[in-house]
Amino acid sequence: LCPPGVLPLCCRAPSWDRAARQLPRLPLAPCRAFSNNKIQVDLDESSGIATMKFKSPPVNSLSLDFLTEFSISLEKLENNRACRGVIITSAIPKIFSSGLDIMEMCGKNVEHYGEFWRAVQEMWLRLYGSNMVTVAAVNGSSPAGGCLIALSCDYRIMAENPKFSIGLNEAQLGIVAPFWFKDTFVNVVGHRIAERSLQLGSLHPAPEALQLGLVDELVPEEKLLEKASAVMARWLALPDHARQFTKSMMRKTVLDRLVAHREEDIKYFINFISKESIQKSLRMYMEMLKKKKG
Amino acid sequence: LCPPGVLPLCCRAPSWDRAARQLPRLPLAPCRAFSNNKIQVDLDESSGIATMKFKSPPVNSLSLDFLTEFSISLEKLENNRACRGVIITSAIPKIFSSGLDIMEMCGKNVEHYGEFWRAVQEMWLRLYGSNMVTVAAVNGSSPAGGCLIALSCDYRIMAENPKFSIGLNEAQLGIVAPFWFKDTFVNVVGHRIAERSLQLGSLHPAPEALQLGLVDELVPEEKLLEKASAVMARWLALPDHARQFTKSMMRKTVLDRLVAHREEDIKYFINFISKESIQKSLRMYMEMLKKKKG
Amino acid sequence: LCPPGVLPLCCRAPSWDRAARQLPRLPLAPCRAFSNNKIQVDLDESSGIATMKFKSPPVNSLSLDFLTEFSISLEKLENNRACRGVIITSAIPKIFSSGLDIMEMCGKNVEHYGEFWRAVQEMWLRLYGSNMVTVAAVNGSSPAGGCLIALSCDYRIMAENPKFSIGLNEAQLGIVAPFWFKDTFVNVVGHRIAERSLQLGSLHPAPEALQLGLVDELVPEEKLLEKASAVMARWLALPDHARQFTKSMMRKTVLDRLVAHREEDIKYFINFISKESIQKSLRMYMEMLKKKKG
Repeated sequence: LCPPGVLPLCCRAPSWDRAARQLPRLPLAPCRAFSNNKIQVDLDESSGIATMKFKSPPVNSLSLDFLTEFSISLEKLENNRACRGVIITSAIPKIFSSGLDIMEMCGKNVEHYGEFWRAVQEMWLRLYGSNMVTVAAVNGSSPAGGCLIALSCDYRIMAENPKFSIGLNEAQLGIVAPFWFKDTFVNVVGHRIAERSLQLGSLHPAPEALQLGLVDELVPEEKLLEKASAVMARWLALPDHARQFTKSMMRKTVLDRLVAHREEDIKYFINFISKESIQKSLRMYMEMLKKKKG
Repeated sequence: LCPPGVLPLCCRAPSWDRAARQLPRLPLAPCRAFSNNKIQVDLDESSGIATMKFKSPPVNSLSLDFLTEFSISLEKLENNRACRGVIITSAIPKIFSSGLDIMEMCGKNVEHYGEFWRAVQEMWLRLYGSNMVTVAAVNGSSPAGGCLIALSCDYRIMAENPKFSIGLNEAQLGIVAPFWFKDTFVNVVGHRIAERSLQLGSLHPAPEALQLGLVDELVPEEKLLEKASAVMARWLALPDHARQFTKSMMRKTVLDRLVAHREEDIKYFINFISKESIQKSLRMYMEMLKKKKG
Repeated sequence: LCPPGVLPLCCRAPSWDRAARQLPRLPLAPCRAFSNNKIQVDLDESSGIATMKFKSPPVNSLSLDFLTEFSISLEKLENNRACRGVIITSAIPKIFSSGLDIMEMCGKNVEHYGEFWRAVQEMWLRLYGSNMVTVAAVNGSSPAGGCLIALSCDYRIMAENPKFSIGLNEAQLGIVAPFWFKDTFVNVVGHRIAERSLQLGSLHPAPEALQLGLVDELVPEEKLLEKASAVMARWLALPDHARQFTKSMMRKTVLDRLVAHREEDIKYFINFISKESIQKSLRMYMEMLKKKKG
């Protein structure tokens, strides 16, 4: 029985995921530590704290493979009673995550776009709705989808390097952050800051991000993980049950909105991304990125 | 006739109260000053300002008796045309109110839990929806339900003593602040600060409470009532009618939500508090309190 | 096709306007610069930036004529592909706009009140829902409806003169800011600041307005337009399409609310303003203003 107005997120294995995605039910085998292609996951069973390290060169972009691995890793940890909290960070210097992989949105077919977008939604539903304590240790730049991952955690610590920036900069690319990116952002920084930042597609240097409330604190890069562990310990000092209900109560409205409009949101994305004008501007953006590197 | 989207709170004697609680209709006899067991109420008819002083040792906990007296006192003042504003403070040193009385939630029967919870709701509906100007002069610590009382006022002044703290710390006790505590909190400090503070069950020392916007200003303890009167005078300088409509417009959504889910909320509370696990953790908490004192 | 949860404001010529007001469809003739009675409009086709200068002495009050001219000017610019942004400022020293013209609300008949209120709504729906980038260069005091105009823009720059103040001070006059004034205010400054400021009918001096987030920055008065142009250039650097969708997504809920309750809101206004008690307090307010001048 949940409190009025509270999603049953407090129950492990939320009902929307398998129903919507027909994920194969994962074996609930003991999973202490598992490593795979794009994300390294380590679980310290004594503390109950897992660490997820993005290690997908060059910039941890959120490809379909990356997103699937992320969702599966999260689900495994969520179902593992030994795990109570997750620290999310990057193994790649200077970049936390560059956001959605443009390659997945360019020159592919409609089925691919749909599958990709469902995977983006899935990742967010799992992370924003997680029962675990989630702490982002943002040790590099974090635009667009990378920013969304940080925003979806319970707490954000960023390396105090003004060269690192974070923000939902979709408008710069000629695309629009979906409503659930916006909702997540508004819940963190409020309506006015979100309105301005989203319209300008701003990338905020770390000190500005702190000032806006986009991140909770800045620490020297070498102390980032140490600080994340200390923060995690403080959050884990609370009884899980009460904390989870409270979290669910705070995030329910926004999670519900995507769940209610999921298929509509996918259809809109497919239609939007298939437009020749959008394809053209994404190709131009990729050209620009290539020239920058060269 | 009320403006679209405005509760008829502007009409004295809100319709939900007697209907829901079958309170005996109070005699509208002239009530200049009345004192009773747990709250001292004084009304200065020349200024139109009443003072409610909590005087229920040792810690002004919100027992069923206290809550009933609080609601009746508020209703009397609300119906008294000589009264336009109320200053709420404590007669007990170092404590404003310790919040809901755990004794009322421990080892009692289902009927008792229901009656108690209805009285908590009633108090909040009356205070948050009051037509009078309400100023909290927080002259001591104010956890949980004590914090709710302060949050429900129009303005909060706190003694600038860093030993005094305030917050919705329910999660620390393994319980969950109800959705309407949360709504009231979000309306004061915004979504992000509320999310973090509620999940951690934080008690904020006075200076931090000021910084978060949880209270509006800090003054030396000896100047608290003087300051409260000055603030009250500024609020009473406005025409009542316009101010009351405006207040109702701002608080309507959140008041409506509890009115619409009142019985559901009581049922949930009864079910939750009757659980053996919750009873156990409350007993442990009380043991801890006893040892602290001893 | 719009994203889920997005008003089709992105389509020029919003559907609600003509349907609701039966405005004659304006000829889409090339309109480079046009001047008329109360607002001077200049369009720089090379930059795509228009300037609207209020020039209705003595205090740019929002009369029916002023509001109609404002809406028509906005519509012309909106339909002009050469125009991408508008800077709104005043040609009258020390005053941006004094807000709704009390003469329109005093001693007139019911039809007049209805026509006037519809024009106020129309102006706000067009400005808050504009596809163009809108920057307010607030070069004087800006109470009530004047403040609403500033709040409805994308960005607010104010002359850093502490003698200039801004705010929704309706409560001071014994009237109530309508719910859509309130919604616009809450979207800028958040719930708590709005609740306090609206109940007190506060007029905030420029430095305080900056601190509350009511305006985005202060600059010396002589640099106001230069700064407005620089801000506009930054906003116009973004692709129109993405920016417009984003703006619409942020403002949709609040715009929808008035569209859904428009007739109800007009009826309420007529009923309210026709009351003898309100007429009396407006007459007293006008007397006071006359004495101030004399």
